[in-house]
Amino acid sequence: MSVTAVDGFRAGGLASGIKESGAPDLAMVATDDGAPVSAAGVFTANLVAAAPVQISRRHLTDGRAAAVVLNSGNANAATGAQGRADAVRMCELTAQAIGCATTDVLVCQTGLIGIPMPMDPVESGVPKLGAQLTADAAGGTAAADAMLTTDTVRKLTTQPVELPMPRAATVGGMAKGAAMLAPSMATMLAVLTTDVAVAPHPLRRALQTAVDASFNALVVDACQSTNDTVLVLANGAARNDPITAPRGFAYAALVEALTAACADLAHQMATDAEGATKCVTLTVRGARNAADAQQAARTVASSQLVQCSLYGKDPYWGRIISELGVSGAVFDPERVDIAYDSVMVCRDGVAVDLDEGARDVLSSTMQRRDIAISCDLHHGNGEATMLFTDLTHAYVDENMGTS
Amino acid sequence: MSVTAVDGFRAGGLASGIKESGAPDLAMVATDDGAPVSAAGVFTANLVAAAPVQISRRHLTDGRAAAVVLNSGNANAATGAQGRADAVRMCELTAQAIGCATTDVLVCQTGLIGIPMPMDPVESGVPKLGAQLTADAAGGTAAADAMLTTDTVRKLTTQPVELPMPRAATVGGMAKGAAMLAPSMATMLAVLTTDVAVAPHPLRRALQTAVDASFNALVVDACQSTNDTVLVLANGAARNDPITAPRGFAYAALVEALTAACADLAHQMATDAEGATKCVTLTVRGARNAADAQQAARTVASSQLVQCSLYGKDPYWGRIISELGVSGAVFDPERVDIAYDSVMVCRDGVAVDLDEGARDVLSSTMQRRDIAISCDLHHGNGEATMLFTDLTHAYVDENMGTS
Repeated sequence: MSVTAVDGFRAGGLASGIKESGAPDLAMVATDDGAPVSAAGVFTANLVAAAPVQISRRHLTDGRAAAVVLNSGNANAATGAQGRADAVRMCELTAQAIGCATTDVLVCQTGLIGIPMPMDPVESGVPKLGAQLTADAAGGTAAADAMLTTDTVRKLTTQPVELPMPRAATVGGMAKGAAMLAPSMATMLAVLTTDVAVAPHPLRRALQTAVDASFNALVVDACQSTNDTVLVLANGAARNDPITAPRGFAYAALVEALTAACADLAHQMATDAEGATKCVTLTVRGARNAADAQQAARTVASSQLVQCSLYGKDPYWGRIISELGVSGAVFDPERVDIAYDSVMVCRDGVAVDLDEGARDVLSSTMQRRDIAISCDLHHGNGEATMLFTDLTHAYVDENMGTS
Repeated sequence: MSVTAVDGFRAGGLASGIKESGAPDLAMVATDDGAPVSAAGVFTANLVAAAPVQISRRHLTDGRAAAVVLNSGNANAATGAQGRADAVRMCELTAQAIGCATTDVLVCQTGLIGIPMPMDPVESGVPKLGAQLTADAAGGTAAADAMLTTDTVRKLTTQPVELPMPRAATVGGMAKGAAMLAPSMATMLAVLTTDVAVAPHPLRRALQTAVDASFNALVVDACQSTNDTVLVLANGAARNDPITAPRGFAYAALVEALTAACADLAHQMATDAEGATKCVTLTVRGARNAADAQQAARTVASSQLVQCSLYGKDPYWGRIISELGVSGAVFDPERVDIAYDSVMVCRDGVAVDLDEGARDVLSSTMQRRDIAISCDLHHGNGEATMLFTDLTHAYVDENMGTS
């Protein structure tokens, strides 16, 4: 159901001609009446922030927005002053189409970096799209389709918000991103909607908490690409007592629903990773603290050699323990245990002598798409989980050229 | 000429049976008379240091050694107490063969991690090898061949040491390593010999300086694998006034020669990188300081997406500027210039509109194996250079399995 699962929002998407292939490339999400509502965003930490990121940050200073316009096919990044003017023009066209101020429009763009934005398709496409937004499911899926790049499937989510009775509310969302883990640059974009009544400040806090626990912790160094953006619009249609501070039951319910929505979208992104044949859930436990666990998990998950082994269905734990060793985490190498699903292959830092039954189980584990790898450092209580994928011929193919 | 280019050293290599393929896998370098001489080592910073690293560190505490024994085919890493006993046994056998103390022998091992070391080939091979060491070129090349793993060519170097007249001296060396840049785990090993008379302490300092300026700065995060080791033995046969402190003309000459030897071996390693079709010299200049430049260059060079673009002969500078942006270096994105060889493709952070002639030059540049990429941040005087390679189908093939 995506962003239109929430009462009071319309959406749509179409093919404007930005993509030469003729695939859908322009999307819009807007409030029903074009009135601005509470809004918040989390953006890339990349110093080279794309024009749409710069403009959306500026338009969010008042914590309110009425619409989001998105395009795929061009990132409008590394495009200088002209890029910023083009991003503002997209907002202006959108504002005219739905009847709001230009500064009430946020903009997301994704595609190639360093190519001037083709504005003719935008000039004709945005007014046309603005006129055909709908509040039904088709509008939400059309928007979700038009933001895709190398994704193979659209990514939608709907989550209930467990507000105190008698109010019920919803978070809806859509995302694009088909990325390897860091150091990937593949952009991730997500737009969420909700009918919870919430002031901009607690909405911003809730979104940051949700992103940290999902996109940032589970899949990707989300703040890597020039264009990474997660936005939320909250129209208050649920008529709950407005949340005005980041505390209380209603706030907790909002955080939980936003986190569930982001985690759902993040998992869909990992599953749709470019060229991947494996989706690995890596858990590091027994670290000195959470930061050590996080760093150790990130180092293992980012390793090209670990990723290649998984593509080769090879349970080569030697590369895992070696990556743990360079991560900076503190532990005794001769207390480390490593398991692939239920099969422990390394105990106290050395190989386990597997019997034939265990070897058979391990061999069939390595054939599966979804694998759990767990590492126990036996040093403390720090624990972290990370989703990652394998490094394949298809990944190389996908990323060899820009066309 | 390798390690035997220096008077007073013998070397050799043979196939002992550690490698099932029957390829050479056991090497030795020793002083002519088995007497210990000044020695130093630089080892991996990996917390999971292999048994031979632990043993060599211990045997170097007095700054003296008479021999180095090396094997390929098994890294003896993540092998616990048994691994350490096996590494000590290799030293003991070597000591018996050449007539020195066990603690005067250093040991290097490379190959798969986590597999118990097969000691039968070592028990029979080391005495046999010790009896056939020679001081001629064939001994040096046989040793260099026996340390190789996925390398396709042996790596040798000989450099003059410009001591104050009338003394002349030499640094000889051999290495193995056929690695992608970080986050690769492919082990690099190097053994150097010299006839310079130098005390252990300044020798250690000189070696660290040479490694920082070559293996660490140019190719690989050298201190990544479980087994990375660079060793030097200095027998004093040049009869110069012994260098007793890290200063003066003779010390400077030694540093220069060791650096030239390490840089030569590092370049050979980069050229022989696993599956690579490109060898890229990346320069980042105009950074706030040297550390920023180093970090920016390392981030770009480590990027899977940048590496894939190069394999695809695609001058996609957008990925380069994006990686600069996440590196942590401080700069203004709209002052960045990026060039492939002589063709500037990005000026002041945006695309340069190339004429047909420039496009032709760029296209032929991308066909070449050796490419120079330069990035100018226009922010300060920091500069760093890094060698790296592309990410290819062959790399994935090479690293998919352990067999």
